[in-house]
Amino acid sequence: MSNAVEPFVLPDKPVEECGVFGIYGSGLDVAKLTYYGLYALQHRGQESAGIAVANGQQVELQKGMGLVPEVFTGHCLDKLTGHVAIGHVRYSTTGSSQPLNAQPLVFRYAKGMIGLAHNGNLTNIAELRSQLAYSGSVFQSTTDSEVLVNLIARYNANSLEEALMKCMIDVKGAYSLLVITEDALYAARDPYGFRPLCLGRLDKGYVVASESCALNTVGATFVRDIEPGEIIRIDREGLSSTQGLQAKNPAHCIFEYIYFARPDSTMDGFNVNRVRREMGRQLAREYPVEADIVIPVPDSGVAAARGYAEESGIPFEEGLMKNRYIGRTFIQPTQQMREIGVRLKLNAIREVLEGKRVVMVDDSIVRGTTSQKLVAMLREAGAKEVHLCISSPPVLRSCYYGIDTSDEQQLIAAQKPLAEIKQTIQADGLHYLSIEGLLDIFTPKQDYFCTACFDGNYPVEVPRSKDNAKFSLE
Amino acid sequence: MSNAVEPFVLPDKPVEECGVFGIYGSGLDVAKLTYYGLYALQHRGQESAGIAVANGQQVELQKGMGLVPEVFTGHCLDKLTGHVAIGHVRYSTTGSSQPLNAQPLVFRYAKGMIGLAHNGNLTNIAELRSQLAYSGSVFQSTTDSEVLVNLIARYNANSLEEALMKCMIDVKGAYSLLVITEDALYAARDPYGFRPLCLGRLDKGYVVASESCALNTVGATFVRDIEPGEIIRIDREGLSSTQGLQAKNPAHCIFEYIYFARPDSTMDGFNVNRVRREMGRQLAREYPVEADIVIPVPDSGVAAARGYAEESGIPFEEGLMKNRYIGRTFIQPTQQMREIGVRLKLNAIREVLEGKRVVMVDDSIVRGTTSQKLVAMLREAGAKEVHLCISSPPVLRSCYYGIDTSDEQQLIAAQKPLAEIKQTIQADGLHYLSIEGLLDIFTPKQDYFCTACFDGNYPVEVPRSKDNAKFSLE
Amino acid sequence: MSNAVEPFVLPDKPVEECGVFGIYGSGLDVAKLTYYGLYALQHRGQESAGIAVANGQQVELQKGMGLVPEVFTGHCLDKLTGHVAIGHVRYSTTGSSQPLNAQPLVFRYAKGMIGLAHNGNLTNIAELRSQLAYSGSVFQSTTDSEVLVNLIARYNANSLEEALMKCMIDVKGAYSLLVITEDALYAARDPYGFRPLCLGRLDKGYVVASESCALNTVGATFVRDIEPGEIIRIDREGLSSTQGLQAKNPAHCIFEYIYFARPDSTMDGFNVNRVRREMGRQLAREYPVEADIVIPVPDSGVAAARGYAEESGIPFEEGLMKNRYIGRTFIQPTQQMREIGVRLKLNAIREVLEGKRVVMVDDSIVRGTTSQKLVAMLREAGAKEVHLCISSPPVLRSCYYGIDTSDEQQLIAAQKPLAEIKQTIQADGLHYLSIEGLLDIFTPKQDYFCTACFDGNYPVEVPRSKDNAKFSLE
Amino acid sequence: MSNAVEPFVLPDKPVEECGVFGIYGSGLDVAKLTYYGLYALQHRGQESAGIAVANGQQVELQKGMGLVPEVFTGHCLDKLTGHVAIGHVRYSTTGSSQPLNAQPLVFRYAKGMIGLAHNGNLTNIAELRSQLAYSGSVFQSTTDSEVLVNLIARYNANSLEEALMKCMIDVKGAYSLLVITEDALYAARDPYGFRPLCLGRLDKGYVVASESCALNTVGATFVRDIEPGEIIRIDREGLSSTQGLQAKNPAHCIFEYIYFARPDSTMDGFNVNRVRREMGRQLAREYPVEADIVIPVPDSGVAAARGYAEESGIPFEEGLMKNRYIGRTFIQPTQQMREIGVRLKLNAIREVLEGKRVVMVDDSIVRGTTSQKLVAMLREAGAKEVHLCISSPPVLRSCYYGIDTSDEQQLIAAQKPLAEIKQTIQADGLHYLSIEGLLDIFTPKQDYFCTACFDGNYPVEVPRSKDNAKFSLE
Repeated sequence: MSNAVEPFVLPDKPVEECGVFGIYGSGLDVAKLTYYGLYALQHRGQESAGIAVANGQQVELQKGMGLVPEVFTGHCLDKLTGHVAIGHVRYSTTGSSQPLNAQPLVFRYAKGMIGLAHNGNLTNIAELRSQLAYSGSVFQSTTDSEVLVNLIARYNANSLEEALMKCMIDVKGAYSLLVITEDALYAARDPYGFRPLCLGRLDKGYVVASESCALNTVGATFVRDIEPGEIIRIDREGLSSTQGLQAKNPAHCIFEYIYFARPDSTMDGFNVNRVRREMGRQLAREYPVEADIVIPVPDSGVAAARGYAEESGIPFEEGLMKNRYIGRTFIQPTQQMREIGVRLKLNAIREVLEGKRVVMVDDSIVRGTTSQKLVAMLREAGAKEVHLCISSPPVLRSCYYGIDTSDEQQLIAAQKPLAEIKQTIQADGLHYLSIEGLLDIFTPKQDYFCTACFDGNYPVEVPRSKDNAKFSLE
Repeated sequence: MSNAVEPFVLPDKPVEECGVFGIYGSGLDVAKLTYYGLYALQHRGQESAGIAVANGQQVELQKGMGLVPEVFTGHCLDKLTGHVAIGHVRYSTTGSSQPLNAQPLVFRYAKGMIGLAHNGNLTNIAELRSQLAYSGSVFQSTTDSEVLVNLIARYNANSLEEALMKCMIDVKGAYSLLVITEDALYAARDPYGFRPLCLGRLDKGYVVASESCALNTVGATFVRDIEPGEIIRIDREGLSSTQGLQAKNPAHCIFEYIYFARPDSTMDGFNVNRVRREMGRQLAREYPVEADIVIPVPDSGVAAARGYAEESGIPFEEGLMKNRYIGRTFIQPTQQMREIGVRLKLNAIREVLEGKRVVMVDDSIVRGTTSQKLVAMLREAGAKEVHLCISSPPVLRSCYYGIDTSDEQQLIAAQKPLAEIKQTIQADGLHYLSIEGLLDIFTPKQDYFCTACFDGNYPVEVPRSKDNAKFSLE
Repeated sequence: MSNAVEPFVLPDKPVEECGVFGIYGSGLDVAKLTYYGLYALQHRGQESAGIAVANGQQVELQKGMGLVPEVFTGHCLDKLTGHVAIGHVRYSTTGSSQPLNAQPLVFRYAKGMIGLAHNGNLTNIAELRSQLAYSGSVFQSTTDSEVLVNLIARYNANSLEEALMKCMIDVKGAYSLLVITEDALYAARDPYGFRPLCLGRLDKGYVVASESCALNTVGATFVRDIEPGEIIRIDREGLSSTQGLQAKNPAHCIFEYIYFARPDSTMDGFNVNRVRREMGRQLAREYPVEADIVIPVPDSGVAAARGYAEESGIPFEEGLMKNRYIGRTFIQPTQQMREIGVRLKLNAIREVLEGKRVVMVDDSIVRGTTSQKLVAMLREAGAKEVHLCISSPPVLRSCYYGIDTSDEQQLIAAQKPLAEIKQTIQADGLHYLSIEGLLDIFTPKQDYFCTACFDGNYPVEVPRSKDNAKFSLE
Repeated sequence: MSNAVEPFVLPDKPVEECGVFGIYGSGLDVAKLTYYGLYALQHRGQESAGIAVANGQQVELQKGMGLVPEVFTGHCLDKLTGHVAIGHVRYSTTGSSQPLNAQPLVFRYAKGMIGLAHNGNLTNIAELRSQLAYSGSVFQSTTDSEVLVNLIARYNANSLEEALMKCMIDVKGAYSLLVITEDALYAARDPYGFRPLCLGRLDKGYVVASESCALNTVGATFVRDIEPGEIIRIDREGLSSTQGLQAKNPAHCIFEYIYFARPDSTMDGFNVNRVRREMGRQLAREYPVEADIVIPVPDSGVAAARGYAEESGIPFEEGLMKNRYIGRTFIQPTQQMREIGVRLKLNAIREVLEGKRVVMVDDSIVRGTTSQKLVAMLREAGAKEVHLCISSPPVLRSCYYGIDTSDEQQLIAAQKPLAEIKQTIQADGLHYLSIEGLLDIFTPKQDYFCTACFDGNYPVEVPRSKDNAKFSLE
């Protein structure tokens, strides 16, 4: 495909790194169901997509750069027949997007064929890769996943579950993992359960997915979340579960609730949309503002804005209208027309805003550039005051567990005090939700979440420098 | 291009036929501004896009099948330099989509070059084409626009404004028209003003667009709507206006407000979002329902649902979540998984719906197939009752003025009485807004709208059979 | 399509402007047969290709930029069903190659649909276009063919044969023309028969093609050449012929025999391969050289070189080997590796050339740049002497009848005397065939050919300046 | 890319499996020179192409399916900067053509990066792959090359030359191998020298290529052939050579001379064109025929036909004309027009053939289907007698050393006695060159060639079943 993957119009958000989907069931069109499942998880990755299908004899793979419907066109899924499948969507950043890094990865090893789809980030990947290389492994990509496959292959004297348990000892970091062989599906989640992974039933088969919305889309019934440290195997004998390493407390990524996950997903016991509305309510309690209307930054700020409006009694309005057709690729505005970039996506409605004191609710700020433009846009459309309320705490630290939060140098909250940020974005008020307020929503499970990007409490040791985590030979 | 244009996931709506954008201004990057303007009008047509630019010497054209960012990629706009431009987006239906029919059309004629972008539908096209053909004209496409160009060319002894006035006498039907020559921009609207067209200023230049949201996007200031029957010319002398034929009363398409236009547009004096909310209020007054929550069918039903909730006092909730990544092309579900089609786009949220009596607000019903699936989906997610409230009157008749409403045989309201429709879609209640209630919103301009699709009062004579309107030689 | 049409590696030749193919026959797969016929005529045009098929009801068209197999892929021909077809291949030069100019052109006019494929060049096109425009015609392309279609359409009160006869009166220049309607095939050749056109039978149907090699390819039997000024119609009644205007003597393009036509074609009574071999023999008689071997510049110089060898008794050898995979597109060598351009296509064989006095036979020289490189290449491979023998007279004048000979400023023979050319290309000898010697081959039909590019005797008046022949509005 | 790789029009020939090209030289544009080198080797593989370039720091790779100019377009080579490069072209058969199998392969291993381009076929690949897998290796492709890279990586405690020497002990079969690291180029040839590989100089750098024609194309001077069993290293120290295993006698593939190699190449001391002409002379001595003309099947039969004509005194003519534009992809003729397949490529010239007794010279017969069609074509064009003379012995056995000769079941000579073949193809005479006659040409090096496909004397043990040689897990 010719068209380079360009950044979204409003890239000023953390970026989720991946979504996974797996299915086992004879009589099901597993390739197409995986396709639809990935469609439901498209928000978790727009750079590449792939599906591997096994039919008892072998594993067939198809993958490519682009959105799910761009990678899978025409009748290409018809060739992928079988009763087990895994699929993967991968994120898009402005950086290098390499076809080689698209997943699933499928390899032949001593015991046959093996495919792997991985959401997360390993923190000791450099050491692992180096050890493997010196005993003869070669690597074609720079992904964690290729290291994982090589590690599994080293344990080929064990069963695949035993091999995965051994890997769980070797490997540090975050991973929600799907593995396919010629005739079985395996799923594993790291000991802290950083990234989500849930299980569902469809007819007599099973479905595993990053988010429950994908279960709904294919018509599967939600069964439960995969436990931290759990390894499950699904084959003709049915489902069996093994508990591997497990941390004392889970450390679920709290940013999934704030921004990444789809609002209609429920993960580790909490419905995302409900959590977001509570975040808005809590924000209204922490920061009551005198205002005429509450408006969201669509789409991700809608639920929190509604919560804020409900709690505060200030009317909810839609003051920013979103262009539903805006996509990944568009011709960049020149300097001269820089403002068009934001206006292409969002339009401020004078009829709603004129003369009003406005509370604008957004879910997070990363670099602050978009916030600044939105505040200006509201004023231009007649808003008298603009109070920006953020339904998450300030992002101060980088994530090493599967999210691209930008470098700390680019995180405005890590670089400037609140007052300066407020001045930069020219708002009349700027309020962040407190960490305590955020965690209260999850009572009594306040301790079950990773909040490292807010407070630096990293549950798993992180590499000294971020580069260190990359392949030293790269 | 390889990818065939496939229908949207939920095609069960009337389809707008086009959007136009024009700009005149030296010192402006008119090609790029037209590109952004078309981006803002993308909802009016997804089948093809085109831009023609003039630089005083000639008119350069680029067009193709697909969305705006698919047609214009890389540096292709850099070649289109000049100070005048017109652009066009064309609709997508399941039928034949022909590259030849993409607009603008650009021709050489006796007085130089001429380009044309057209939104609307002419009702006496067969007669016009036949007359032209017998005196020697040839036609490459089956578009109204090619007939218009030939007609204009016949009047090459007149000025272009005079030629357009003569055409206004010959031509019947709906048209909002932009014409470009080597050094000027012309805009014209039919005597009834069926389709919208508005004028804005940008720096020292002018912008003309189907909807005001496109003016906002490029940073232009709204000046006024083009009047029914008005012809304007913009060239180095500035803007001049001529009044051509004008009907006694305008007949603005009321469906623009109900469904087509972007909510942030204001056309012929009415803000679309505000009108939609009023439609919801009026609906609540006409049909009060005992219910626990009001939910919209996103996105087009949101404003009306909010109005309904406000007027009725029943809480507004989001019970259907939309997949923001769903696009035009996807692999069709087989019979066996037919339900996935709707679930790919919309997911019913059990947490919101369970045990509730629900008012679901949608803007219109065409064939009814989607409504039926949505009602079933809500029940499956636990809704106790589902009342479907439609914020428009029943669509009973075909449109001949630029909208594809489907054949009357496919219009469920034209084929079945209300009670049967209710039974077909399995709703506990089904309510349409009344025509009077709808028109009340526009008081005192109730008589300024075309409501032919509801009541068959066609302001301009229509062909006896719909086929008749097509090229008889086709 | 992404791939720009780049020039051939050795563009230093005159360029043929088009090839046409037509077929009529019920029960035949006329689209596929036209495809194969165009494949056989691919040497006459590599820029674009198109096929129009009629089934009694309408004319369907498919065309695009590129070689025949690039334009027609997969199952695209399956949609073109019918019993009449015409096809066209168009040339490629370094200049602007516009999709709009691809042929056939298909139009609707007063009497139905009409398609046209044209090989040749009209000399009074500017006047014709201007007259048509002032009486109301519009033009989308800048081709002769669009003017022809408009002219035919003006005569819609006549039968199509009568219309073609009237056009023959209006139009000056060279044309071998195929016309398709919903149910018939027409072929016409200008009064001088500049460009070739021949007729064949296939089963109970008829085939018309630029060259007889296309008849052979589809399995048709050669019947005869279409006469200068003849118009034939093929429909369900069979074939009927009408004689239109006819010049006193034909003026067949002699360059078809020298370079353009395929060696296995026979046109207007002369087999191309045989003529070329005679040209070599004649050259040997005119310019006997003391040498050890005769080598051709492959492929077009092979037959003449063989003739030279036979006549002179000097052994024929292959001293230049051609890369059979060289195509239209390749990455241009930089200045530093300029020599690679020629070596990519041709490699000099030291084993053959070392120490030898070489006669190198080529068919023509246009700019001389390639000749210079080839002479250098032979010397580098050890040739002691290099005599360049050209099997055509020097090209001194531009062609206005369908060939792109380059501007006279670029024709080395028009700019420099023989001695200087010899010095420029660094040959030990340089010999051109004489015009008389060339014409002798065709005895007793010496007067039946156009030799304007050699002697300036233009049979039909040519425009004063070449630009004049182009669309004055362009 | 959309276009599937379809078989050639005349696939009835053995198929060469690959070509390789390597270059080392600072100051040279090594990527572009490799591109041109691969262009010269395009006849050795049309399925995929790839180039890997190293700049002292890392190895960058670009590869894809298709011809060299299809894989490398626009400015894509500009990104490949460095001073070392290797390139590869891979063959095309009708079977599965997998992007994963395209070469070069580039991997990271313990000592950095390594890239590999391989021409040949290993006979003990199944055992090697199995051993590696059980000690933990994983494989993404099914190529010999990936096994080789893993094997090299196991010897990472050795220098790369030592590692290659160890591999030479492990590996059986045919290989001409290029290896690239961040800063050096290695070339190795198996102990029998099955496949060709030669060395040249370009400025102060070195070039290694499958055939000398590639040296000529890039302007390099031929130095010598790489010896069987030799390993050379080229880096900033210059060139150093190590002798690894060496067989008692070489076993150069004799089919390279008969059909695969370009006629302008010289390999292992013999010029291909000269050998082919001698084959024709020898054939004329072995099988004198009473005939009027000798014609070749172009292009590969031309040199032998000329030799036959010279030796026999029968005039050489071109009775079959080849369409120079025929490519890989074309729309398949249906049953009804089966004959068109051959006629698209070759046209019999009646003027040459009518009434003549013809000797048609071809280089080889595999399945015999094309020969049959050609004989019929000649008769149809008037030939009185057709004697088919084949300039190679009958192909009776499969090749395991890098050529795809088809299964023995498909080899007509392995299935039928000569008389039956003659009857099948309906020739008046059918003659093959004798093995002794063929080897005489190479006197006194008759024992230096592999003739296994003629006589079954396999120099290196071959797998019992051909499938055995494939990946047992496949």
